[in-house]
Amino acid sequence: MPSVRDARIDAIPQKIDARGTLAVAEFSRFVPFKVVRIFYVFGVPPGTTRGRHAHKLCSQYMICQRGRVHMELSDGAETRGFELKAGNGMLIEPGIFASESYLDADTVLLALCDRPYEAEDYIHTMDEFLEYVRAAGGSR
Amino acid sequence: MPSVRDARIDAIPQKIDARGTLAVAEFSRFVPFKVVRIFYVFGVPPGTTRGRHAHKLCSQYMICQRGRVHMELSDGAETRGFELKAGNGMLIEPGIFASESYLDADTVLLALCDRPYEAEDYIHTMDEFLEYVRAAGGSR
Repeated sequence: MPSVRDARIDAIPQKIDARGTLAVAEFSRFVPFKVVRIFYVFGVPPGTTRGRHAHKLCSQYMICQRGRVHMELSDGAETRGFELKAGNGMLIEPGIFASESYLDADTVLLALCDRPYEAEDYIHTMDEFLEYVRAAGGSR
Repeated sequence: MPSVRDARIDAIPQKIDARGTLAVAEFSRFVPFKVVRIFYVFGVPPGTTRGRHAHKLCSQYMICQRGRVHMELSDGAETRGFELKAGNGMLIEPGIFASESYLDADTVLLALCDRPYEAEDYIHTMDEFLEYVRAAGGSR
């Protein structure tokens, strides 16, 4: 099972000039999977928390494109918080319970996923998640 | 060679509720390739035109996440213009010369690409592009 101790914030390289900013995520460098689905979230009232689930199989790479997100990650044994600012990216492995609190009104969060949407891949409550971690024999 | 007559605007499905908006591009539906690189552009002074190049091999799927972009596409024989609004997507095939004019100050344009960055894949001027189309025997 993955550990939140492995979580880290990446700085997505940006090329800034008079014509604006171009930010590039070369997947070989940041995203250790083939991307088959993306989604992005915006227009979230500041202070709202979304996510609050784990995936059994789906890996996600989250990029804060605008604004700020407080990301809370749990592996069942430990919980860690991170503030993603615009231009920050973070890999969220399957088996990690993640919640995102949107801090700024204009925040845009982009997620790159290695699997299509599968309802059965979601673990929606912390109780279910702890049970899942125990059943997986999570010795940490 | 591709034709601009095939270009079309897609509406990326959005799920809107009190917690904000989630927009999802399932690649099987919109993006006919494996994504190995993404980039996004923002902070562009309104009225600025970027792009102004064609790719020989790289396919790109552009999503206007915020604001508006005027997209001008040429296949060497014909030129067409499109206005992409927030939530619109468009496939740009290789062999199409594309320019993007950023209409609103807060515009964010996301590009999904099927190839890593390769300097030699770019055709930077319309003269070179017309020569490339002629050499490819572009009978349309």
